[in-house]
This record gives sequence, structure tokens and C-alpha cells, in this order.
Amino acid sequence: MALGEFDLIARFFQRPARRSALGVGDDCALLQPASGTQMAISCDMLVEGRHFFAGADPERLGHKALAVNLSDLAACGARPLAFTLALAMPQVDEAWLAPFSRGMLALADAHDCELIGGDTTRGPLNICITVFGEVPAIHGKTRALLRSGAGADDDIYVSGTLGDARLALEALRGHVSLPVDALARTRLRLEQPTPRVALGQALRGIATAAIDVSDGLLGDLGHILAQSGVGATIDTSSAIGLIAENHYPTWAGVDFSFDSVAITPLSLVLAGGDDYELLFTAPSSAREAVTAAAHASQTPVTRIGRIDATAGLRLLDAQGQPVSGRFDSFDHFA
Amino acid sequence: MALGEFDLIARFFQRPARRSALGVGDDCALLQPASGTQMAISCDMLVEGRHFFAGADPERLGHKALAVNLSDLAACGARPLAFTLALAMPQVDEAWLAPFSRGMLALADAHDCELIGGDTTRGPLNICITVFGEVPAIHGKTRALLRSGAGADDDIYVSGTLGDARLALEALRGHVSLPVDALARTRLRLEQPTPRVALGQALRGIATAAIDVSDGLLGDLGHILAQSGVGATIDTSSAIGLIAENHYPTWAGVDFSFDSVAITPLSLVLAGGDDYELLFTAPSSAREAVTAAAHASQTPVTRIGRIDATAGLRLLDAQGQPVSGRFDSFDHFA
Repeated sequence: MALGEFDLIARFFQRPARRSALGVGDDCALLQPASGTQMAISCDMLVEGRHFFAGADPERLGHKALAVNLSDLAACGARPLAFTLALAMPQVDEAWLAPFSRGMLALADAHDCELIGGDTTRGPLNICITVFGEVPAIHGKTRALLRSGAGADDDIYVSGTLGDARLALEALRGHVSLPVDALARTRLRLEQPTPRVALGQALRGIATAAIDVSDGLLGDLGHILAQSGVGATIDTSSAIGLIAENHYPTWAGVDFSFDSVAITPLSLVLAGGDDYELLFTAPSSAREAVTAAAHASQTPVTRIGRIDATAGLRLLDAQGQPVSGRFDSFDHFA
Repeated sequence: MALGEFDLIARFFQRPARRSALGVGDDCALLQPASGTQMAISCDMLVEGRHFFAGADPERLGHKALAVNLSDLAACGARPLAFTLALAMPQVDEAWLAPFSRGMLALADAHDCELIGGDTTRGPLNICITVFGEVPAIHGKTRALLRSGAGADDDIYVSGTLGDARLALEALRGHVSLPVDALARTRLRLEQPTPRVALGQALRGIATAAIDVSDGLLGDLGHILAQSGVGATIDTSSAIGLIAENHYPTWAGVDFSFDSVAITPLSLVLAGGDDYELLFTAPSSAREAVTAAAHASQTPVTRIGRIDATAGLRLLDAQGQPVSGRFDSFDHFA
């Protein structure tokens, strides 16, 4: 029997209200932010065929749709509170909805982030989540991590590792051939990314600017530089270090002499996209504090360069020589 | 020249932050609700071919996409604050985006509701808005209008008029033939609805329950009854009054002897859908207060029935006899 819209919500998505004053099932949900906090809000839309392949594993897709939103909260140093889900589907398919909601709500539970409302409709598969977090504001001054605070001589860091998701994407597109186990591991990064929520909160008061790496390291760094009015120099040997064997056992057996597209280890790291790591800046005086934040949040971070007063982005190799190459970031309309 | 995603946002949607602590252009927007308020949150997704026709006037569509969300705030008695917009489009078409953003931002300005963030991507046309409003909360107790507060012997009211939008829809579908001027007027109701934002706020402390009529009067009343644990009796002669000539000059020249579908004046009023009027309940002791709220918000309201302690929905004609007929409400998955 086909489920109607309201049955569908009740069966797969409705739970008792916890944090919210009022949850799913009225015209609006009600949230009461704690005194002395601001609400951080972000919104991401995932479209079939654009952000995920048709037939993608629904449980992982449910996870990813929320993860990319939580990643935006992480980049602001916000604590997750709640989210809304709008879902367009070609038809009501319980065999798809059950794992989709399971994957989404498992990640939500892991971050104590409550589903408080949304919309369901028929249409080409489209998942739109708006997520709400809270950040302290002291005397009206936000403690959120912004893109605009990087200063000259700040160090530049990135969390975790970069490039796996793009490598898996190129393999799934048939541009690259990967060993089975390498595909499985990189594919997990693509399809079930880990938002760096704990690191983002640990970096409040330490990082001067932050962004999550969704479109590629260089492109996302470009946003920090533009909004902070600064430039940067990236040590690509440290970036290459990010894909060295100790970081990337997965890549050890990969043949990078692809013939179909210009994919190199360096291009994957610098412009891969879909990584959902945190890219952030901090004064050199804060190196111990950064290390402590990384340790407290159990998230590895690597220093990859420094902010310059001079505009522009410079890529240097281990010998301090400029690195050439085009490393385009991802633009949904490019 | 094709605009990229970031240029597109800057050109058509980015404005200086006003109410928000931080607006479009960072990982998150920041909102700081006033002390003693709760945030009301609602989300609606509009899909081409489902909620609007392909080729719909983009300025009206921009208006409607926001209007249906503001209508949810109205139904909670919330004051609009801000919204996010996620937009999937087959391609970047400036000739479409300019009027679309103009229509949307004009309505936003009329309600002092700030666009604070969102997402753009390529995909089948899909417009997803999440809207934020504020309602007072006194000692943690919300002043929001909920669906769950209707009590036995409360009066039932509806604002404005009902049925125009559905009549226009049936005409555009070719099920009904309308005179040119009647089509133009009803089509405006369908394509550019007026959210009853001022009425909703005026009804705080007066109405015991409220909902906006989006799926049809009877279907939406059903939500109030279910969540309040009550029944209702509707005086269909007053509902018919809602479509009498003094309310509906537009319908005066319409021939209701359609042959293709079972459309009657009564079915349009009771189950039309897409009306975005407010349906609410209030104690009979509050009749003067309701009239005053209607007057203050310059919004006509009509009393159409009463809440019963006995479950179920009874439709009576002017002689007090039961009205038969099926009046299905709209379900996006029915």
C-alpha cells in the first residue's frame, strides 16, 4: 500500500520533540536558543545525478545529506541543534526511505541534532537540508569562526586527508581504475563523509578563520583570502605529505598514470572537492593550542602554509620554487 | 557569458546584512533572536510540474515560493525575520533569475524578512525555502498559535475567500473554461498568494488553534481536529456564503456545469487547496476580539462552524441537514 505524505512523515521521520519546544507536525517548529548564543544556519541541496549517482546507497546518502550540512556548522565552530529536511522523490519507496532515514537519523543522533520539520513532495530526487547550530556570543560579539578573520603570518592548517572522495568519484565515472579495496575505502569517504564538528568547536577562540573543504582546497582557501583581504603561500610538499603513504595507505597501490583526465595526486589534494575537512588559520603563537584542539577532538591536522599580507595564492615546492598547473575548484555552474 | 555559482549569488541574491549578525557568504548565517522569543521555523519545497507549471511567470513564482513559507509563519502567529533559499536550476538563465529574485525580494522587503543564505546548484527546477520568524515566549511558554489548542464550543473561522486558486488551476489544466477576466483574477490568487502575516500576529492570545489552508479547508481542519482531539461541525451555507457574489464577483459569470471533473462551488471552497488563508478557532467569548484583529490587520474573516467535543467532521446545510459528498484534500503522494 502506498503511504500518503503525512503517513510517510510519521513513519520514517517523526519522533518526540526533545530539544525543540515543538517538533514535526505543526505549521512551524519552535526553537528557543539559549541565552547568550547566536543561531548558526546553513542550507545545502543535493540533486541526483549532480551530487550523487542515481542508485546511490540510500543509507549512505541519508548520512551524507546531513553530513555536508553539519560540516558547515563545524566550519563556524557551532554546536549542532536541529535541522529541517525537504525531500522530493519520484515515488514513495519504503525500501529506499527506511535506510535513507536510518542513515540520516543515526548521524543526527551522534551529534544530538534533532529533525524538527520539513516537507515531502513528488519530484525528481532532491534532498534539501537546513541545519541550525548555536555559537556563543559574548556581549553581542560572535564567537563563530568566520572566513574573514585571517591575518598576515597566520599559519594555514587542514584537518584529516584530502583527495579520497574525488579519486573515488573519478573511479566511479570510469576515468580511473582502482583496486577493489582502494575503491571501497575511498568510496566511503565520498559517500559517507565525517563532518569535523568537534574540531570546529575546539577551534573557537584559537582559529582566526575557517571554512570546510567542499569545492577543493584551493578554491575554498580562495574564499578565506578574498574575505580576509590577504594572500597565502602553500607548501605543496606538505600537501603532498598529506597524500604520502603514512596518511594514505589507500593510495599506495594506485597507478596515477591515468590517460583519460589530468588527475595527479597533487591535483586531488589541492582541488579534489567533497572532502568536508576543515581548512583554518591561526596565529603561529597558537600552535600548541591548535595541537591541543586537534588532540581533544581526536582529529589530525596538518600545517600546510601561511597567510601573506600580499594578495594572491602562491604554491611552492619543497625547494621553494613555484608550482605550475591549473587546479580548478568545483563550481556547480562552471 | 554564463555566471558561476558565486557570481550568481552575488548578483541576484546578495545584499548587505541587516537583521542578521552575518548574512550570505560564509559557511553559516548567524541570527540572534531577541531575548524572550522563540524561533519559528518552516520549510517548503516547490517542484516544477508539481507545484507550478513549467514556464510559470518567474516574478510571480519568486513571490509564491516565499509566500507559502510566510503563510506557515502566519499560521503560528510569528513575525518574519529571515529565510534561506536553495535553488536547483537546469541552467543559469539571467532572464529568468532577474524577475524571480525581484518577485521574491519584493515580498521579503514587504515583510522585512531578510535572505540570509542558501545554496544554488544545477538540476531540475526546485525551490526550497526555510523561513524563520519569532514569537514571544513568556516564562518559557510559547505564544505561538498551534494546531493543538482547539476546544469544544470554540468558533471556527477562515480568512478571506477560498477556491480561486483551485479554479484557476483547473482552468489552466483545461478542465474548466473561464472568461478571460475571471481567469486573470483567479490566476493571481494561484500564482501570487497573499500570506496572512498581520492577521496571524493579531490573533496571538485570541485564537486557540490555527493552520494555513494549503491542502484544502477540510483537510487542514482535519489536522486541527486530530491534534486537538476534537470534532467539528461546519455550516456549509456559510461556506457557500464564502463564494457568494458579494465575496466572489469573479465567480458570478462562471458556468459550473463542467463535464470533465467533479468541480462544484462547494468542492472548491471545501477542498480547493493553495489558498493560503488562515483557518483558526477561538472561544465564542472572543468574537469581538476576533473582529478587532481582523480589522486591525485589514483581513476579512468569516465564522464557518464550531468545534465539538465529539470526534468527526460534520457538514450541515442551511437546514441543518448533513451534506454528502467526497471532498478530498491535496496530498502530494495521493
